[in-house]
Amino acid sequence: MTRTVVGSATREVALGFDQPFVIIGERINPTGRKLLAEEMRNGDFSRVERDVVAQVEAGAHMLDVNAGIPLADEPAILARTIQLVQSLTDLPLSIDSSIVAALEAGLSVYRGKALVNSVTGEDDRLERVLPLVKKYGAAVVAISNDETGISEDPDVRFAVAKRIVERAADHGIPREDIVVDPLLMPIGAMRYAGRQVFHILGRLRDELKVNSTCGASNVSFGLPNREGINGAYLSMAIANGLTSAITNPIADGVRHSVMAADVLMGNDPECARWIRTFRQAPVEGERGVRVNRRRGGGPVEAPVAG
Amino acid sequence: MTRTVVGSATREVALGFDQPFVIIGERINPTGRKLLAEEMRNGDFSRVERDVVAQVEAGAHMLDVNAGIPLADEPAILARTIQLVQSLTDLPLSIDSSIVAALEAGLSVYRGKALVNSVTGEDDRLERVLPLVKKYGAAVVAISNDETGISEDPDVRFAVAKRIVERAADHGIPREDIVVDPLLMPIGAMRYAGRQVFHILGRLRDELKVNSTCGASNVSFGLPNREGINGAYLSMAIANGLTSAITNPIADGVRHSVMAADVLMGNDPECARWIRTFRQAPVEGERGVRVNRRRGGGPVEAPVAG
Repeated sequence: MTRTVVGSATREVALGFDQPFVIIGERINPTGRKLLAEEMRNGDFSRVERDVVAQVEAGAHMLDVNAGIPLADEPAILARTIQLVQSLTDLPLSIDSSIVAALEAGLSVYRGKALVNSVTGEDDRLERVLPLVKKYGAAVVAISNDETGISEDPDVRFAVAKRIVERAADHGIPREDIVVDPLLMPIGAMRYAGRQVFHILGRLRDELKVNSTCGASNVSFGLPNREGINGAYLSMAIANGLTSAITNPIADGVRHSVMAADVLMGNDPECARWIRTFRQAPVEGERGVRVNRRRGGGPVEAPVAG
Repeated sequence: MTRTVVGSATREVALGFDQPFVIIGERINPTGRKLLAEEMRNGDFSRVERDVVAQVEAGAHMLDVNAGIPLADEPAILARTIQLVQSLTDLPLSIDSSIVAALEAGLSVYRGKALVNSVTGEDDRLERVLPLVKKYGAAVVAISNDETGISEDPDVRFAVAKRIVERAADHGIPREDIVVDPLLMPIGAMRYAGRQVFHILGRLRDELKVNSTCGASNVSFGLPNREGINGAYLSMAIANGLTSAITNPIADGVRHSVMAADVLMGNDPECARWIRTFRQAPVEGERGVRVNRRRGGGPVEAPVAG
């Protein structure tokens, strides 16, 4: 059974079809967060610190770290952010950048086996990123698009993923260290985006036998009650073989859907985690699981602190 | 694309892989409901009437009708219940009994094309139930167990379903009129019950090309936050090809999971139903959708009457 193991200096996390689903917290990312971008540019990492704490408390298994700030020194900021985050938590990290120099800067300071996020199927990207992955002994997210863009044909996207796995092998990177992102489109814009991804995921599991991840929040773009769509999407994708997602761990609807999916895939032995979480059926104000009231069901960031 | 059409005198409902998921309301069933059993035995159908209204208002697409009361005249009570229910709603019905005479009594008074619930793979059951299904032009639920019981091997259960479809063809019943129940066990008792059913459902869709149904509440037996498990199960099963379920339509978590799954399968065109249901994002106390706080589960939105 394929198992992708990533780690910090002191903790390992495994992705696999027989493992509990891995939630990679998406919050440390200045894209679309103007205030965070401005603060990070100016060397103020207080909000990053709060995002680390909140995601760890919400039960994230890994954290994604992105420092993509326009016109900033991304390699330096990414390296600094990674060092800061590793001083706060022992969760393994995903080093997230579209700039190869930033990936290398991040890898050079990272302690442990990182997940590089990401490489795409273009030749020049493959030839620049895969040697880095090999050099640092990392795992890598492989995004299934290439020079021709993102195909609407799921079998073409599968073929791109297969080609990346083969190319990685040429560089001495085993398939266990490739985590494929099948690319999820907003369902409001593309009616069969869900079916396409479920089809690719099944082939990744059954034929290519590789682990997978995806940005799960994008699917509900433009729709009301996004958390309802995101949670159902994740459980459906897990049933088709998805083994991790980059998403917001603080959203109850999402976290609980993933926990239920782990139960239903047989990956929560004896249903122990489910029972531990829900058996007390606590009401508001009690410790443990707390239900947050919100307007309209959209995601709200409310860390469950004692 | 396989489509199973059932109907009342004035309304049709279609099951299919390109159709919105069909929720068959499970409430009209005295099994485990002592008070209801006693009332029905004594000719008091007031609770049945309330169950009809509540399930119709909750958005059920069909209603299951069962009159299995020990030592009672089940054929007579079932026929009377069906006539009553058909006087209250035009939703198509599923006629539910393990007694062949009761199925026939129900079919004889039913107006429209009913769903007979059910036939199993035992020879004598097949030879008694299938002629009735043919005679009344009904559709039928085929449960994938036989003389040997319920196999834990999903491929054996698939083979039983295939045999029922073939036997039905011998009786002149097309595969479009067979709805297979792959038999869902409680996940708390059988760790891989979910994976088994997902595997069978995929084969039913891709190889046998038949519609499917299941009793969806059973999966969470013995666990806390049952609605969380039931909702995730349904969305995962839908992703693998399940096209209907006999369940409680009044449970918000279940209904909303099914609605989200329809969006993600491309079976809620333009996401119109989802947007209509959730776009107002009202807060508690306003008309429309309300956010209810509940014990142990995530926030769920419930329709507000009045």
